[in-house]
Amino acid sequence: MSTDDRLDKRVGRLSKSRMEAFSDGVIAIAITLLVLELAVRPPGSPWEQLRQTWPSLLAYVVSFLTIGAAWIAHNAPTDLLDRADVLLLRLNLLFLLFVAFLPFPTKLVADGLYDHGTEAERVAVVVYGLTLLAIRLSFFVLDSYARRAHLLGPDVDDADLRDERRKFLYVVVGYAVTIVLGLVAPLVAVALYFALAIFLVIPFRGLSQVFSGRQPDERPQSGSGSGPPAADGH
Amino acid sequence: MSTDDRLDKRVGRLSKSRMEAFSDGVIAIAITLLVLELAVRPPGSPWEQLRQTWPSLLAYVVSFLTIGAAWIAHNAPTDLLDRADVLLLRLNLLFLLFVAFLPFPTKLVADGLYDHGTEAERVAVVVYGLTLLAIRLSFFVLDSYARRAHLLGPDVDDADLRDERRKFLYVVVGYAVTIVLGLVAPLVAVALYFALAIFLVIPFRGLSQVFSGRQPDERPQSGSGSGPPAADGH
Amino acid sequence: MSTDDRLDKRVGRLSKSRMEAFSDGVIAIAITLLVLELAVRPPGSPWEQLRQTWPSLLAYVVSFLTIGAAWIAHNAPTDLLDRADVLLLRLNLLFLLFVAFLPFPTKLVADGLYDHGTEAERVAVVVYGLTLLAIRLSFFVLDSYARRAHLLGPDVDDADLRDERRKFLYVVVGYAVTIVLGLVAPLVAVALYFALAIFLVIPFRGLSQVFSGRQPDERPQSGSGSGPPAADGH
Amino acid sequence: MSTDDRLDKRVGRLSKSRMEAFSDGVIAIAITLLVLELAVRPPGSPWEQLRQTWPSLLAYVVSFLTIGAAWIAHNAPTDLLDRADVLLLRLNLLFLLFVAFLPFPTKLVADGLYDHGTEAERVAVVVYGLTLLAIRLSFFVLDSYARRAHLLGPDVDDADLRDERRKFLYVVVGYAVTIVLGLVAPLVAVALYFALAIFLVIPFRGLSQVFSGRQPDERPQSGSGSGPPAADGH
Repeated sequence: MSTDDRLDKRVGRLSKSRMEAFSDGVIAIAITLLVLELAVRPPGSPWEQLRQTWPSLLAYVVSFLTIGAAWIAHNAPTDLLDRADVLLLRLNLLFLLFVAFLPFPTKLVADGLYDHGTEAERVAVVVYGLTLLAIRLSFFVLDSYARRAHLLGPDVDDADLRDERRKFLYVVVGYAVTIVLGLVAPLVAVALYFALAIFLVIPFRGLSQVFSGRQPDERPQSGSGSGPPAADGH
Repeated sequence: MSTDDRLDKRVGRLSKSRMEAFSDGVIAIAITLLVLELAVRPPGSPWEQLRQTWPSLLAYVVSFLTIGAAWIAHNAPTDLLDRADVLLLRLNLLFLLFVAFLPFPTKLVADGLYDHGTEAERVAVVVYGLTLLAIRLSFFVLDSYARRAHLLGPDVDDADLRDERRKFLYVVVGYAVTIVLGLVAPLVAVALYFALAIFLVIPFRGLSQVFSGRQPDERPQSGSGSGPPAADGH
Repeated sequence: MSTDDRLDKRVGRLSKSRMEAFSDGVIAIAITLLVLELAVRPPGSPWEQLRQTWPSLLAYVVSFLTIGAAWIAHNAPTDLLDRADVLLLRLNLLFLLFVAFLPFPTKLVADGLYDHGTEAERVAVVVYGLTLLAIRLSFFVLDSYARRAHLLGPDVDDADLRDERRKFLYVVVGYAVTIVLGLVAPLVAVALYFALAIFLVIPFRGLSQVFSGRQPDERPQSGSGSGPPAADGH
Repeated sequence: MSTDDRLDKRVGRLSKSRMEAFSDGVIAIAITLLVLELAVRPPGSPWEQLRQTWPSLLAYVVSFLTIGAAWIAHNAPTDLLDRADVLLLRLNLLFLLFVAFLPFPTKLVADGLYDHGTEAERVAVVVYGLTLLAIRLSFFVLDSYARRAHLLGPDVDDADLRDERRKFLYVVVGYAVTIVLGLVAPLVAVALYFALAIFLVIPFRGLSQVFSGRQPDERPQSGSGSGPPAADGH
């Protein structure tokens, strides 16, 4: 504790940059470890074996996109942070716990889909959905705490916050419905997890701006207070 | 050696930032590799198999929290460092050796708890406790050296140091008692390792400050010499 | 979405540096995980077993060089970026999806070459080639988008762009031909993948400059606007 | 190539910092993956099984220290770099190839020592030694190139260079002798690899300075041109 207080007092900013570095590390590792679960399974000709890896590949892509979306989502509150505090570091650790856990249910889903129609498939799909939900919920807690504790800068406008909360609600309701659905139609549930991952990762508003011909000069951040390029460090 | 001296002379600060980056990397990887040991085991229905993974899940959570606490603890002395030196880099390497080793005893504990009541369980729990103890002791050596060699800045007050040492003592005594207890009641020992991990990770003083309505403006670090946001780099 | 927009507005540069950190992490992990697939196989004397690991070693080296070349290639557009935007982060994620996937077809190729002359070998070599092609194509999309959206700085001259596009064309045609060839002569195809990896990794123009006695002082970047060393941060 | 040239021209410093980040990542992952090879082996009581993991543990420690020493050694030339160039990035990649490869021969040695007295043990120990030698040689090439190409700053004095080259020679001769010795006395060879790892990791000159009561104020780097803390970024 005393350690953390000293941290707070003197080096709040550094601690934020190490929180980012550590989070990037854990998320990057979790997303890359997913590949270790991929394997072809012996019975059948080589082409058949390859074709039968589709559950693994599907689970790989859904988990990759979900973790990728979690990383993109994680960028926003931490970039906007003015500082970290002792509780934020722990809430971040909880979020990372669920992200780092995802390769396990991913493997369960791959195995479950391979033995389609079994009880194992339903168990796997439900555990998978609960983990996806836990990632979102723990991120919501992290994000909410950062706002409530006034760790964010003052120029975050309320329209954005409302938008984000609405999207969070969609996704949480989506996961809850899909988890229940997974008990009766596991394959449909995995398809919905896929759709939710796509929904999370696609930047609808950003895309419309990009395709409507936004010019770089119109963007305020270049001339803002983020300093001249020479002082930007890395 | 000559290499390290040149390092010391010219680029002490850079070497500190790479020490942080390397440590963050190793700790992030060790914490994320834990998931690879998780597996359901064949006999029983899918729900039973899942329920029987609880030893793996418990070992996963305890190790995750312990490594997470080690990372948070590691933040403090390195953030406070004015510079690194040749010996600090090596003591840090020793600390990382034990952190990176933890996935192995974690697997042993998961396997041991699965075969509850066997000799294997006791062996696993003792080896696990010794590793947790080694992580703490090597961190203590690292931290103590940083203080003794005056590598820390001048504004670290003694009340904080005394607090931290007292907490270290609690945890070391806790581990020592639990390791001995593990020889007769391994399951109780794992529960205690869990409690100690929680104790390490929860910021008691920080929490009380957060809930007592600490205002951001009261915190000295914002206006301190850490520079204006524009120069904050990274 | 709203999150990403806030990101764009306030912290475009930070988001770029985390995109680099995350990409470096994923690429570094993918390149290092390749070693986990290496194994000697039981039948035969120890020396024979070691000699028979050559398919694994060959696949390891080809994949290592290909990922290494992808990392070097990835340096250029992101270093030249003035800022990231919401779409670039996603295109980057797609590129990382294929890079992180490579250890799986690498294992297939190692297994396929081990059972030389079988159908499995041809399947493996084709899947491997398709993944290599996907890495290049997704990188091309990422790079092209960065140019088209004017995210790059103004001083990138057109001769360089033309050169790079020509090289990209060679490699894509090379992969396409090799994939087809892999259906009839898989071992030759692997040799060609190796040659293409070498082609990607060797800096022909850079080498000629180095060996023609380029002096450091002639290089413009030292005195350019990248700022004085003291402000270089990191 | 054109990509790399643009890199050189505009963003030499950034490319150096990403080279560091990528290298730190690969080295951190390789050093942490070593733990995955650790396993107890079924026959015998739990304590016996644990006692019989000593070859794995020994190989783990030797490889951990060797990679740790390689990381510390890698700090020096890259920290001293004024800039990176196209060839240096590739030589660095070659160095990382051998570092990332080490977990494989480490596993061979662990397996070989477990079946003491067999041909497999000798094969493993020789392959292990050749990898250790390759790490050192590729680092020497990297380091020499950085010097020869005048990529290092001007204030590296020649006494240091001579010291370092002498130490390199000791280690290379040590590895060469030990590899030959491994053919007749593999266990002695592993003990010597251990001794060489310790020799590489212990900072003899640094230690003598630390214990002779060096004062922090006497060290020139604090007041040097590395800039005030506020501008230190990261």
